[in-house]
Amino acid sequence: MKPSIPIDETHRRPTAQLEVPPRLLLGPGPCNAHPRVLQALTMRQVGHLDPCFLEIMDEIQTLLRYAWQTHNEVTFPVSGTGTAAMEATLANIVEPSDVVLVGVKGYFGHRLVDMAGRYGADVRKISKPWGQVFHLEELRQALETHRPAVLALVHAETSTGAKQPLEGVGELCREYNCLLLVDTVTSLGGVPLYLDAWGVDLAYSCSQKGLGCPPGASPFTMSPRAFEKLQARQTPVANWYLDLNLLCKYWGRDRTYHHTAPINMNYAFREALRLVSEEGLEQRWQRHQATAELLWDGLSDLGLECHVKREFRLPTLTTVRIPDGVDGKAIAQTLLHDYNIEIGGGLGELGGQVWRIGLMGFNSRPENVLLLLAALKRVLHQ
Amino acid sequence: MKPSIPIDETHRRPTAQLEVPPRLLLGPGPCNAHPRVLQALTMRQVGHLDPCFLEIMDEIQTLLRYAWQTHNEVTFPVSGTGTAAMEATLANIVEPSDVVLVGVKGYFGHRLVDMAGRYGADVRKISKPWGQVFHLEELRQALETHRPAVLALVHAETSTGAKQPLEGVGELCREYNCLLLVDTVTSLGGVPLYLDAWGVDLAYSCSQKGLGCPPGASPFTMSPRAFEKLQARQTPVANWYLDLNLLCKYWGRDRTYHHTAPINMNYAFREALRLVSEEGLEQRWQRHQATAELLWDGLSDLGLECHVKREFRLPTLTTVRIPDGVDGKAIAQTLLHDYNIEIGGGLGELGGQVWRIGLMGFNSRPENVLLLLAALKRVLHQ
Repeated sequence: MKPSIPIDETHRRPTAQLEVPPRLLLGPGPCNAHPRVLQALTMRQVGHLDPCFLEIMDEIQTLLRYAWQTHNEVTFPVSGTGTAAMEATLANIVEPSDVVLVGVKGYFGHRLVDMAGRYGADVRKISKPWGQVFHLEELRQALETHRPAVLALVHAETSTGAKQPLEGVGELCREYNCLLLVDTVTSLGGVPLYLDAWGVDLAYSCSQKGLGCPPGASPFTMSPRAFEKLQARQTPVANWYLDLNLLCKYWGRDRTYHHTAPINMNYAFREALRLVSEEGLEQRWQRHQATAELLWDGLSDLGLECHVKREFRLPTLTTVRIPDGVDGKAIAQTLLHDYNIEIGGGLGELGGQVWRIGLMGFNSRPENVLLLLAALKRVLHQ
Repeated sequence: MKPSIPIDETHRRPTAQLEVPPRLLLGPGPCNAHPRVLQALTMRQVGHLDPCFLEIMDEIQTLLRYAWQTHNEVTFPVSGTGTAAMEATLANIVEPSDVVLVGVKGYFGHRLVDMAGRYGADVRKISKPWGQVFHLEELRQALETHRPAVLALVHAETSTGAKQPLEGVGELCREYNCLLLVDTVTSLGGVPLYLDAWGVDLAYSCSQKGLGCPPGASPFTMSPRAFEKLQARQTPVANWYLDLNLLCKYWGRDRTYHHTAPINMNYAFREALRLVSEEGLEQRWQRHQATAELLWDGLSDLGLECHVKREFRLPTLTTVRIPDGVDGKAIAQTLLHDYNIEIGGGLGELGGQVWRIGLMGFNSRPENVLLLLAALKRVLHQ
């Protein structure tokens, strides 16, 4: 068989065997995966409807409920990165002209606004300066004014490092008969989080931060109240890949084919959740807190200032003010180039003003803090 | 720090170390990944904006252009499985009330209809019995009747094993001033495919079939003509995660953050494409054809019949008629249980009527055919 058309060799080229530098990932994510997670990732594949894979899917759902402290039946990873899980929550819950109230106090609040709008929501915003959080009374006032179908808040704002307190918000939402949607991308697995006790109706997250897994499978959950709204939709979900009606048939009892799940990513994700369960949430949250405090004290010794008030600081992600006269980008590049340490720059409004330092999952260890502080000290005083 | 709320231990449970059976995946996909691909998958992570990762992204785009035989600048993997890439093509190209003409001759044609409808398209259908293909004259007639903005065809229908000839279709679409959208999920990397020479404007695929990679990163490409339509949109793309305007800023020169790419999946995907480039397309297509012919001859020796006429048969996926009186599902289960060989059952209209046998990527090797035939013979005559 000769090809009917000559093959164009323009883009065929020899490429070297993959070689990646030994980075220590202390930016806003991804973090380095736990070695056991990487090992699981590389296991040989089985089919996406293999009895053995169905069992893995069940284990994942159970362990994910533990990590999120929820009994929601609809709790599983979406086959994409955290942004896909964010989109899944909005695509399924928003019907055209639903009022969605978004608390904006950083980049990811803005993203929620943009996405909800694309699904036809009547989006209302309340805003705070980046790095601050909303108080319960402010939320009550906004609910009173806008009477939304959904209140969307970012628990852990990855662009600012601030932690939105959620105690009492669920009760408030019930009082105003609206659903509570929460972004837990930078909190799940590293920051105290009680979905059921806090009355959260919809949440999403990612795998590559507090859970210490590579990116590619992203937690999603929905309370029975939210599921009722989904069932009562008048219009089809405007997203086939993320349509929960179809996804629940694959992850639930029917086991109907919907799409080919990322098999190896699910192996890895299971292992990451298994590590959470072995360590225990209390221990894990304490570890993240202790590692962060070590960082905060060390930064203060270096004369550096955190952007967020201590009581609202995330243990997973710290924003550090870049001192006047210092070229923040150059410092980050030198850390990467000379010491293989990645930290993040500011995003959006905080661009050029802060560094973002992540201590998440497997990377939340004191030795990483000591190394970073030592390297930072050296690079700042070069 | 004691947790403020007692931790619910209901879903915390000990789980065993991951152990998966040594399946030989000869169903419709996923197939077993090449060992070099699995090795790449497990490499330590770098950040999604690391200079080293940006280089990997460039290599992926180049090698993917070779595999697809296209010069399209917009050519990269979407961060999800094949269904996400399918959704990306429709979400970006369809504006509400655009006429989209879909050729339906299997399950995936129906899926295109469903998805296009969700993005507001005025969907028109032409249909053929499952296992058959459209002739050029039929397509011309349908274009004449419907005058669509987009003609969508499935090149390799995974539910039937039929290959839609595409020679001449691109010219036809230009004559009728419409875009040609092609599903190459089960053809890329295993079946002759010349996107540019055939005038294909939009195509998508998956990683876990002809490319021999795990699922989780899915090829997408768009011609300059299609890109023009995207630029001329009056409405925003109704899907944030898959919005090409945003994705192109990350995969193109700007390198603007959009989402955290699945780092390890991209390592694996690069390695899979590297193997395609090393082997060469001509050699690779011939290998798939030769392996398939070995299967077809062997099936005939066993008295089994293929569902699709020989000239339209895919070398990657063969549908085999289940003989009268044989319990097709039981046979597949015995193959899996006794010999660790996975084959697929029929989907949709062909449910219960056929088995689906895939010989794709790394799995397209004569030894796999011999083993399958031997096992099938034994199981059929038990």
